[in-house]
Amino acid sequence: MRIVQKYGGTSVGSPERIARVADRVVATRHAGHDVVVVVSAMGHTTDELISLANAVSPAPAAREMDMLLTAGERISMALTAMAIIARGVDAVSFTGSQAGILTEGRHGDAKIAEIRGFRVEESLAEGKVVIVAGFQGVDPATKEITTIGRGGSDATAVALAAAMGADVCEIYTDVDGVYTADPRIVPNARKLSEISFEEMLELSAAGAGVLMSRSVEFGRRFNIPIHVRSSFNDNAGTWVKETTVEQAIISGIAHDTSEAKVTVRGLPDTPGVAARVFEPMAEQGINVDMIVQNVGQDGSTDISFTVPKASAEEARSIATRAASDLGAGAVEIDLDVAKVSLVGAGMKSHPGVAARTFRTLADAGINIEMISTSTIRISCVVKSSDVQRAVQSLHNEFEPPMITEERGA
Amino acid sequence: MRIVQKYGGTSVGSPERIARVADRVVATRHAGHDVVVVVSAMGHTTDELISLANAVSPAPAAREMDMLLTAGERISMALTAMAIIARGVDAVSFTGSQAGILTEGRHGDAKIAEIRGFRVEESLAEGKVVIVAGFQGVDPATKEITTIGRGGSDATAVALAAAMGADVCEIYTDVDGVYTADPRIVPNARKLSEISFEEMLELSAAGAGVLMSRSVEFGRRFNIPIHVRSSFNDNAGTWVKETTVEQAIISGIAHDTSEAKVTVRGLPDTPGVAARVFEPMAEQGINVDMIVQNVGQDGSTDISFTVPKASAEEARSIATRAASDLGAGAVEIDLDVAKVSLVGAGMKSHPGVAARTFRTLADAGINIEMISTSTIRISCVVKSSDVQRAVQSLHNEFEPPMITEERGA
Repeated sequence: MRIVQKYGGTSVGSPERIARVADRVVATRHAGHDVVVVVSAMGHTTDELISLANAVSPAPAAREMDMLLTAGERISMALTAMAIIARGVDAVSFTGSQAGILTEGRHGDAKIAEIRGFRVEESLAEGKVVIVAGFQGVDPATKEITTIGRGGSDATAVALAAAMGADVCEIYTDVDGVYTADPRIVPNARKLSEISFEEMLELSAAGAGVLMSRSVEFGRRFNIPIHVRSSFNDNAGTWVKETTVEQAIISGIAHDTSEAKVTVRGLPDTPGVAARVFEPMAEQGINVDMIVQNVGQDGSTDISFTVPKASAEEARSIATRAASDLGAGAVEIDLDVAKVSLVGAGMKSHPGVAARTFRTLADAGINIEMISTSTIRISCVVKSSDVQRAVQSLHNEFEPPMITEERGA
Repeated sequence: MRIVQKYGGTSVGSPERIARVADRVVATRHAGHDVVVVVSAMGHTTDELISLANAVSPAPAAREMDMLLTAGERISMALTAMAIIARGVDAVSFTGSQAGILTEGRHGDAKIAEIRGFRVEESLAEGKVVIVAGFQGVDPATKEITTIGRGGSDATAVALAAAMGADVCEIYTDVDGVYTADPRIVPNARKLSEISFEEMLELSAAGAGVLMSRSVEFGRRFNIPIHVRSSFNDNAGTWVKETTVEQAIISGIAHDTSEAKVTVRGLPDTPGVAARVFEPMAEQGINVDMIVQNVGQDGSTDISFTVPKASAEEARSIATRAASDLGAGAVEIDLDVAKVSLVGAGMKSHPGVAARTFRTLADAGINIEMISTSTIRISCVVKSSDVQRAVQSLHNEFEPPMITEERGA
């Protein structure tokens, strides 16, 4: 088999942990597999480099920030290669650029456009384990080094697995896999043995931190099974893949406290109003998540939407300008909200789930401020002080994974 | 003017110090000069990276060591660029590879073979300050990243100055310039305002740590004036250049405690004996410095030579093997030695200097164990416990810079 293994910052956080990673890689190699290893920067290296940058500049230049941060994976990849070589297995480390990870888009948030993995392929053919720096690449148009944003190392691993025709991409992390809810909030949350790409995408987008959407998208697009598992034990983790054996009504419950709610009151209920509000947000790169519009009685309407808390002030000022242009009323901002989401592919054929969700929250005395749904997800915005109880009561009600049928059974 | 400035690890050792470097670079740029900046890794970064490597491997692979260590200058170069940009001057940082620093030779001790500075040139043409990582390059034959050994950042700076046709290469360090002796030993040592390449080469080879021989060689070969000065003040430092105004009998006194003395007793006094001893040393890459041979009375001879202390054991075992092959006697090793050297271009025309040196040491009760001379240098090996007094008494006797004439006067 050809296996891509990705180890996060915690897994390579010290020489001792790197030694453990090396043991696992060597065992995989000795089992006869081709192994490509993708590593993040050690522990808090990235944070430390960011503080150094902030100490020398109030607004560090993005191009130089990428130069700086890519030093982090360079360190961990070289150390990992050394540790593997010390165990008698030949290994070689490559930067993103050397591994042929070509990107496009802006510094700090580039996208992987293509992988020209011939150096990786050559080294595998020589029997070497190849270590690749996660999170980084090179823009072939400008020859500039880039980083690919949050979750970038996972995306590197899955994209590399796709490009190298790997059989599986193993994502090693500090948890045992994907859970039906955050175990810190729901102690009896269960580890899922498998989940579909589609559901995982919704869970990631809804705030499940274990995998970033971008890497799940790569997995789905190129049909690379992703095995999310712990770097601290040998337990099977969670398989994220195209078709799962079982179809769940509810696979899991995610929550997200990173967003703020913005409400624009008294907008005229005429065509083009929403566009006037949201076009300038898009131009500023503000990531608007949920949008809810209610028609009022007097021909005016209220629009509420959620944005990352970091963008809240900018969103407010854009909305205030739009409101003033449109003769609308006040713009309100609420940082004290959280989103709880139920995800399950089986929802499509079980229309009662939404009603049961609202009833469960009502019984728990929790007020729903916004609702948005997709075919396999129901999200509700509630007060942030209610979110733990919301997750607990929904987990209790649905006991995910709630299975509707076995596929092919 | 086009100026290359090199800042060592102490000069970029903290965000505050990087800020000071940025101030100086910006001032130079505002004075209308093209500026290329070469930086070392921050403070103890290189040592810290080496300890990490030793923690994951008993014998870190050289190729991966280069990958690891080059992260150090990557960090300092990006921070320096950010700090300059924060002061309103456009800047861009390049790794050795990006700056076109092509090397040949082995990992950890590569040599600069050529500089293809078109990206540097392009950025200068755009009015940018260019920051280049010192100490590193790329081997074009293998595409592998290399480091260029001790003093590598100075060598990078001078070679870059030559390749870019710079008017001067400024080496910023934590001392004010080149002194007539180590000021920690000779409190009244004086700073030289200028010194010839030839003399500086001898001083560097004799142990003066302020500049490594390799960078002086580059300066001489391409006739690039080197200005050694402090990064902590604006004082003029020492100019190292082709022709100096004044010709000194004694420019300075250097000492070196890093070598050991090896003596092979009772070698046959026949042709080819020295070759039999030193050829295997050369093959093992052992850097033999001084060699002295005395003919004894019974047709046998003793050879003494000095090597770096780190190579002493290896040299001893090679010498022991050669001695046994040649039917010679014992091999002795003495770690307790030091070398003191007087350097001055005017010595050529003043033959009395050697005799005066020996007399001065004799009057101080210091025994001379080995002597070696070049046309502009006299070196004596003494007991290491005598070396401070040797430097002091010679400095006192000659009071360098002892001037013989003004050139062209």
